[in-house]
Amino acid sequence: MVLLCFKEMKKLAFILVLLTALKSKGQSSADSAMVAAVYNHVLTQSEAYEDLRFLCKKVGHRLAGSESADQAILWGERTLKKIGADKVFLMPVEVPQWRRGKAEEASYRYRTDNMGLECFPSLVALGGSVGSTSAIEAQIIEVKSLEELAQLGREKIAGKIVFFNKGLDPMLINTGAAYGGGYPIRGKGPSEAAKYGAVACLIRSLTLADDDYAHTGGTQYDENLPKIPAAALSAKASRELSSALKLDSLLKFRLHLHCQAMERRTQYNVIAEWRGSEHPETYITIGGHLDSWDIGEGAHDDGAGIVQSIQVLRTLKAIGYQPKCTIRIVLFINEEFGNDGGETYAKVCKEEGLVHRAALESDGGGFTPRGFMNEMSDAQFERLMTWKPLLEPYGLHLFRRGGSGVDIRPLQDNKIALFGLSVDTQRYFDYHHSGNDVFEQVNKRELELGAAAMASLIYLVDMYGFE
Amino acid sequence: MVLLCFKEMKKLAFILVLLTALKSKGQSSADSAMVAAVYNHVLTQSEAYEDLRFLCKKVGHRLAGSESADQAILWGERTLKKIGADKVFLMPVEVPQWRRGKAEEASYRYRTDNMGLECFPSLVALGGSVGSTSAIEAQIIEVKSLEELAQLGREKIAGKIVFFNKGLDPMLINTGAAYGGGYPIRGKGPSEAAKYGAVACLIRSLTLADDDYAHTGGTQYDENLPKIPAAALSAKASRELSSALKLDSLLKFRLHLHCQAMERRTQYNVIAEWRGSEHPETYITIGGHLDSWDIGEGAHDDGAGIVQSIQVLRTLKAIGYQPKCTIRIVLFINEEFGNDGGETYAKVCKEEGLVHRAALESDGGGFTPRGFMNEMSDAQFERLMTWKPLLEPYGLHLFRRGGSGVDIRPLQDNKIALFGLSVDTQRYFDYHHSGNDVFEQVNKRELELGAAAMASLIYLVDMYGFE
Repeated sequence: MVLLCFKEMKKLAFILVLLTALKSKGQSSADSAMVAAVYNHVLTQSEAYEDLRFLCKKVGHRLAGSESADQAILWGERTLKKIGADKVFLMPVEVPQWRRGKAEEASYRYRTDNMGLECFPSLVALGGSVGSTSAIEAQIIEVKSLEELAQLGREKIAGKIVFFNKGLDPMLINTGAAYGGGYPIRGKGPSEAAKYGAVACLIRSLTLADDDYAHTGGTQYDENLPKIPAAALSAKASRELSSALKLDSLLKFRLHLHCQAMERRTQYNVIAEWRGSEHPETYITIGGHLDSWDIGEGAHDDGAGIVQSIQVLRTLKAIGYQPKCTIRIVLFINEEFGNDGGETYAKVCKEEGLVHRAALESDGGGFTPRGFMNEMSDAQFERLMTWKPLLEPYGLHLFRRGGSGVDIRPLQDNKIALFGLSVDTQRYFDYHHSGNDVFEQVNKRELELGAAAMASLIYLVDMYGFE
Repeated sequence: MVLLCFKEMKKLAFILVLLTALKSKGQSSADSAMVAAVYNHVLTQSEAYEDLRFLCKKVGHRLAGSESADQAILWGERTLKKIGADKVFLMPVEVPQWRRGKAEEASYRYRTDNMGLECFPSLVALGGSVGSTSAIEAQIIEVKSLEELAQLGREKIAGKIVFFNKGLDPMLINTGAAYGGGYPIRGKGPSEAAKYGAVACLIRSLTLADDDYAHTGGTQYDENLPKIPAAALSAKASRELSSALKLDSLLKFRLHLHCQAMERRTQYNVIAEWRGSEHPETYITIGGHLDSWDIGEGAHDDGAGIVQSIQVLRTLKAIGYQPKCTIRIVLFINEEFGNDGGETYAKVCKEEGLVHRAALESDGGGFTPRGFMNEMSDAQFERLMTWKPLLEPYGLHLFRRGGSGVDIRPLQDNKIALFGLSVDTQRYFDYHHSGNDVFEQVNKRELELGAAAMASLIYLVDMYGFE
């Protein structure tokens, strides 16, 4: 033991204060340097874009339950093994099987003053729709809302095809909110129409673009009502059908859908684990969904989130980071059609008693990132705000409370901090669930900026946590 | 005159306070309603996208001095007359004429272990470059910077083709700053190379995309040095040439440019005027530049700014607004090649003693708007900040000080408030000055959101000003 005189003690105290100040300063500039290293690696050496090219062009679309989703699972497993995760494993998930079958057939003929015109509108069956055992031919009744449908009642609707012709609200600058407003018609419209005796249901695609791509998406039948065939018309086809109805309200629409549900089967969440050095029993999950709809290539929805999540692990490893917690990259199966992957993952985590610090999802498309939406306690949000100065120089300014991701939300337990990557939303619903959601619509740099934002946040969450 | 008892006076005072409160509340909600009306009109009835289609597909690219720029001027005049401006007139501007002539010829052959490979790299002459009277064939010297060039000196450079192979800095999240960093090489590189006896100069295109589009742009010769042919290679061609040089440093590059300068001629700024009702002698100028480079279609640069500016007038008229100040829409000619339109406009305004309250330019592409950069006094900026709550709900959160627009900056006089529309910059330099700057790369909604942001700001500037 060394005895110090008062003067020496004062000197030591001064040095300790100085060291503490330097340390906290050092920590902050070290954090800046780590975030810069993350961005530098992603923006110059990321493989996310080439991963996405492979997933879109070699695997293609990958509807849950399909053989191409099997291929995607193999690809995901191989890719995660290559980047040096400590463990890669498959978690069985029961998923529905639904097949579109042959291309949809749709046509109508309408009378103008001096001739009949035949039209073949661009149309896709909604996910989960029943097929038509034979072609349906019936009059159309056009409505704008579920309320208008109810007002018309059985007398006006029975025996007809209900056509919900309602566009998304362009005034909602967050296009996700506009989509949310249109969603009930796609989800409930067919059963609501069936309630009044409709024989089929058409909806205007949930898009803000005025083009000829039809956008699919899941519909949910009420099990107590007849299941009628349901399909989405492109925005252009909707506009044209509405015009035709003004000229010839009695026109007959012919529809034949060849889709069918099959029995459920087992597919897999693909999981990579990177063992933590200090708190290996505490988990951070990062992911997106590997499945997509069966048209287009699922490039933005959600190929982007998949390759970004993989890139997070690749980048944190490349810059020499050693995580404190155990980090998991999860490629969820079947978000689109019942969220089986997310539900199963949360259930298994609960059964195994896994403690999660946080989860982060990217499922808004590979567009310029603007921040992180979040679902967490006020105290956790306060901590997040202390990191904002580190993220803002990279254009991350939006930290909206509420919202994270469909796949990770089942993990919610009052302790976990849930994050969703917030991106520029303007183009998303031009591509979403359509044949136009292809690799070429993703910009390399925008995709990479998203991956860098995610890796930066994960570094901070892992390094400092919320205690 | 009416005499009031104390009780009645108290009652009146109360009513007056109430009225004042209601009025100030009314004013703010009236402003919100006006901004909403602007957005509603633009997002549902804008003609900006179809204007852009016409300008890009029917007129096409429109290099200052060219016949297609004459066509664009006619189109601009016709369009502005159609939307009901009080006055549309042409302001003569002297512009340079430079013609690319026949397509550039470029090739090289390099030796590998067992064969010679011939390459035909994607390349475009820089704007203003002299042509080569005959084909040049010379060795390449690859450098990364103007400094490295100077260090090598005449001995290493004389008789060779200098190849500046320097990409933009991907770490600059504002890609405009990255472009600014690369700009000196394009502007001064050819003359600096000539200083040391180079026979021609190649640069890597100023782009962040790794593709095969070559990007042109103006170069400025030093009049005291020999003028040597100058061209930009695509990013891919630059990468390939650099690899080839590593295998065969003595390879000969063959270059033949057919471009030439011709004598200056007169073209026009196209100006529409909407007379103010209260302060007709005070002006607000809104614009973009009508000229573009001679490859691609000048869709983002700056077709977008042109059609947005026109839409501002159309929308403010459509919602029944009556401006207090005189509002001018100016389609500037020749921003790309000496800024003659902007310089002439400011000069004529000064000669005529016109007083400007503000000017606003859109020249960053038709991408999602994020705010307004601005050059103005602190007091003016304080006023701008009082409008921020009205603009933020529309995603306008960036109000960076410094920067506005090349065309409007000559108006600067210590009184005028200068604004530039700030947009998401990530994709801009993928298209900028290249064959890929075409109509298809502009998203309708993103373009429209920019026009709505501009019209909203102009409403506030006109309504409240900066006094």
